Amino acid sequence: MTDHPTLPVVDPLDRAAISAALVRWGTRAKPPGSLGQLEDLAVRLAGISGTCPPPVVERPAVVVFAADHGVVAEGASAWPAEITGLMVHAMAGEAAAINAFAATVGAEVLLVDVGVAADLTHLPAVRHRKVRAGTANLAHGPAMTVDEARTALAVGIEVADELIAAGTDCLVAGDMGIGNTTPSAALIGALAGSPADAVTGTGAGLPADQLPHKTALVAAAMERCDAIEDPLVLLAEVGGLEIAAMAGLYLGAASAGIPFIIDGVIAASAACVADALVPGTAARGIAGHLSTEPAAVVALKHLGLDPILDLQLRLGEGTGACLAIPLVQAAARALRDMADLPAA
Amino acid sequence: MTDHPTLPVVDPLDRAAISAALVRWGTRAKPPGSLGQLEDLAVRLAGISGTCPPPVVERPAVVVFAADHGVVAEGASAWPAEITGLMVHAMAGEAAAINAFAATVGAEVLLVDVGVAADLTHLPAVRHRKVRAGTANLAHGPAMTVDEARTALAVGIEVADELIAAGTDCLVAGDMGIGNTTPSAALIGALAGSPADAVTGTGAGLPADQLPHKTALVAAAMERCDAIEDPLVLLAEVGGLEIAAMAGLYLGAASAGIPFIIDGVIAASAACVADALVPGTAARGIAGHLSTEPAAVVALKHLGLDPILDLQLRLGEGTGACLAIPLVQAAARALRDMADLPAA
Repeated sequence: MTDHPTLPVVDPLDRAAISAALVRWGTRAKPPGSLGQLEDLAVRLAGISGTCPPPVVERPAVVVFAADHGVVAEGASAWPAEITGLMVHAMAGEAAAINAFAATVGAEVLLVDVGVAADLTHLPAVRHRKVRAGTANLAHGPAMTVDEARTALAVGIEVADELIAAGTDCLVAGDMGIGNTTPSAALIGALAGSPADAVTGTGAGLPADQLPHKTALVAAAMERCDAIEDPLVLLAEVGGLEIAAMAGLYLGAASAGIPFIIDGVIAASAACVADALVPGTAARGIAGHLSTEPAAVVALKHLGLDPILDLQLRLGEGTGACLAIPLVQAAARALRDMADLPAA
Repeated sequence: MTDHPTLPVVDPLDRAAISAALVRWGTRAKPPGSLGQLEDLAVRLAGISGTCPPPVVERPAVVVFAADHGVVAEGASAWPAEITGLMVHAMAGEAAAINAFAATVGAEVLLVDVGVAADLTHLPAVRHRKVRAGTANLAHGPAMTVDEARTALAVGIEVADELIAAGTDCLVAGDMGIGNTTPSAALIGALAGSPADAVTGTGAGLPADQLPHKTALVAAAMERCDAIEDPLVLLAEVGGLEIAAMAGLYLGAASAGIPFIIDGVIAASAACVADALVPGTAARGIAGHLSTEPAAVVALKHLGLDPILDLQLRLGEGTGACLAIPLVQAAARALRDMADLPAA
């Protein structure tokens, strides 16, 4: 294993709090099991926080990590790389989908440039932590060095630590990076042991006739990963800078005992990386929604997570995870505030 | 047809606003279709409001109608009838699931007694509009008179009118009534033309070995409905007082051009009744979630509605519909606030 001085410690879920939550649900004023998946969710939140009832999320934050991908040169995306920087502009102007959703659910939005090819230093709303100006083309070699992967991971951990210290009690990692479903598919395929054609999808609108080409890119990348055992080396070989930072954000949240909500396929690949780096991390995550990308299903199954929403979203930015925040709040609030069963 | 002086007029969806919403989605800063079901939802909201972009819901309200059911005497419920009144007490004390959920999403809760067997007049938080102290046993004859059904329906319409006049811009109807999955199943079976065994479920926890008895009750009730053509007479024959009031609330919302969100199987039966009384009403409704009760699937299919959430909820009270409110808000907000596609 490569040396990982920055990896935080993640505790297993608190079994006593989980047991207490199960007992508490059983005596609330409702038919047993009638809150379905929300009951499981509140039990999970108890295990994450180590308390029963678990605290109700009050200050959620969405951190959107943006970066570019050299593999776009291979024609693996329906969109040109320039869109990454332009969408960060839109987010800085509060005019992207994630801004509308975060405002709806009362979440703070933080934008972090960890690797956009364009210069964004003129945008004060963006935190400038560029590790490099986009990855190298993973079709021709490693996407980045192991040091760069470690640095991007550390950015995510640091942002989590800082937000949590300031009061954030639930974290969502969002992504903006044209071309990033290709590295995500390769990471998920490699970590979940799933073949390229089971993890490659049309992403943000690739025409179906170009899917075989993208699948071949993913297959070739995965083949190079066969001999790699260290998740950080895997991340450097076929990953992305925003994916590394997202994984870091999850590690920071898991280490601090606050829930993190996983978005779509990019986020799921980051969760797979985080869990590979520090086993037990994914058990502290909540799957916000089921993306239409095939690798999302593979990743969530690999991580043992059951998604809350299924709205056929495939936008990224943290949108699907953000929409799950009120459900996470409602589950914990019901467990906390509901009366005992009335005695008839 | 029985005379229905109180039925409001419901306009068809606004086609121009629907077209404008479809065009507007096509030019937002995201891959086409990437917001999945939320795009359909915002288009529907445009059709309901007659404007594009449609207004973002700011003052949602949940109205819980409570009533008892004579059919409980047949052993069709896992719970004694006394629970209805006790749960209204819990709601008045803000200690039920619907209170926790409504507080999470910022919705007002209004409690209306349209037919609870117990005397609740000492509860100031409850609006007292009792039509009768629970229905008659529908296994032995009509659940109520046609006049009583009309009166309960009118209560729902009046409450909607009053709330909308005071600024409510989205309505959820919730139910509290031990035994009410039996009338709901009979109504849905009769209106959707579905056999008793396809619409009868275990409700709030009926043991599986008692399901055949409940199914036989529903089948016998539906058989009496074969000759009934008037939805109001059907409602009186096998319905419930809270179901009638919920249908009225939907008619009031639909008539006023504001969205209403349908909860589980009880709410779905009320939506079927409302749509039978005034065709076009259901097209202005939003299916908040998919209940685990089999009749819910039948009803939503009959009404042509696609549920937003699927969390295996089966609690009622308006809980599932309430949880869909932030998604309804997010859909409209995204359509309103998102920038045009950036020019790369």
